Amino acid sequence: MDDGIAKTLNLKPHWKLWLEKDGVYVFGPGAYDLLRAIHETGSLTAGAKKIGMSYRYAWGVINKIEKIIGMRIIDTFRGGAVGGGGARITDVGLYLIERFAEVNKEFERIALNEEDDS
Amino acid sequence: MDDGIAKTLNLKPHWKLWLEKDGVYVFGPGAYDLLRAIHETGSLTAGAKKIGMSYRYAWGVINKIEKIIGMRIIDTFRGGAVGGGGARITDVGLYLIERFAEVNKEFERIALNEEDDS
Repeated sequence: MDDGIAKTLNLKPHWKLWLEKDGVYVFGPGAYDLLRAIHETGSLTAGAKKIGMSYRYAWGVINKIEKIIGMRIIDTFRGGAVGGGGARITDVGLYLIERFAEVNKEFERIALNEEDDS
Repeated sequence: MDDGIAKTLNLKPHWKLWLEKDGVYVFGPGAYDLLRAIHETGSLTAGAKKIGMSYRYAWGVINKIEKIIGMRIIDTFRGGAVGGGGARITDVGLYLIERFAEVNKEFERIALNEEDDS
């Protein structure tokens, strides 16, 4: 009977994932998108723009995470030959991106397998 | 290096899970808690009270889900010998409870395994 209900309802699991440290929210989808965009563009300005986030808000996101974990997640620098400066994701920032993506991917695998069963 | 970062940060995955039908939110943690409480108490009034939800709000939660999926998730009845009436979770309601719990349990398994790896 559950099979009939499952097929009729055809429900899909959705979720919001985030990472906490000692019960405090540290890193969610917004920060993930921002860090990835900074990583791809090599700049906080360009990265924030790419995902439709203001420069000021993006700095707030980065600062809040760095304050909670007590480590830098991006390094900013003033540009050399081409000017304009840029931003580089630190190893800690890369770890956050990878950890978040990994858990999310596992969740996606569960959600898909689960549909096959129903 | 990731091992050192992982140990220092000691981040735990957290999530909110919900079920959608054709892109529409159907069933999340609040409805899950409510249905379980109704199932345990055999009454909408007692179930809502148990999780600190008003009777009116609880009815709204139930009605909204039933409207979206086009099926009943609880049956209510006027009480017999002992009076007072009650509510019984339908097979569709039981399916929602079980499906939600099952995915959530798999997510918990992922989150725990993942910590062991890090």
